[in-house]
Amino acid sequence: MPKTESAAPFSYEGLDRVIHEKARLGLLTSLMAHPKGLAFNDLKQLCGLTDGNLSRHLQVLQDAGLIEVIKGYEGNRPHTQCRLTKAGRARFLDYLSVLERLVRDAAKAAEAEDAPPGRLRPWPA
Amino acid sequence: MPKTESAAPFSYEGLDRVIHEKARLGLLTSLMAHPKGLAFNDLKQLCGLTDGNLSRHLQVLQDAGLIEVIKGYEGNRPHTQCRLTKAGRARFLDYLSVLERLVRDAAKAAEAEDAPPGRLRPWPA
Repeated sequence: MPKTESAAPFSYEGLDRVIHEKARLGLLTSLMAHPKGLAFNDLKQLCGLTDGNLSRHLQVLQDAGLIEVIKGYEGNRPHTQCRLTKAGRARFLDYLSVLERLVRDAAKAAEAEDAPPGRLRPWPA
Repeated sequence: MPKTESAAPFSYEGLDRVIHEKARLGLLTSLMAHPKGLAFNDLKQLCGLTDGNLSRHLQVLQDAGLIEVIKGYEGNRPHTQCRLTKAGRARFLDYLSVLERLVRDAAKAAEAEDAPPGRLRPWPA
């Protein structure tokens, strides 16, 4: 293994655990796609979540300051609207840049593995 | 919200929970980059993990059939070598294609949000 690698090139420290959870990733992506916010029922449908799961994950995202949850009424019926905060958007973009690097690293590795043997010969020292 | 969307476009069902864990993602990516396998100590360094954490995650990956762990000796010293299985490589590639879609979805959403207002006007009905 080359000794010139940085300390832990495959540690992906930036994969924030609050964001990295599968359901929350879907929620943040759909909120990114709807900057004006989404109603509870829209999020439920878009992300394929149950009421209980959705409430739990929204609470985690809200506690972390990534989203804001506005509870109000539409006519006589209670209506919950969720929106990415500015900080949430910035943190999600940071997370996505790490995720992109991971996808690139893995794709490069997969290609190298698929390449004919000759192509992979290291540069002569 | 357009009704023509598939049932839950942001559910990302293919994000296999065994693979999606942050440390395991790093392990699989480094094993993908080293098709002949890696020693326990190399993995530890590349992924920035402690002995205990590494052992635990390797066990999960092995139980799921994603990697094989070969225990042997190098001279007199015990030597553990880990390698992606063929099925593991295929499952990781499947996972990566879902991850790529998520990164694309989110990037597209972020771009749309950054665009000047005029560009986002919906097509007249």
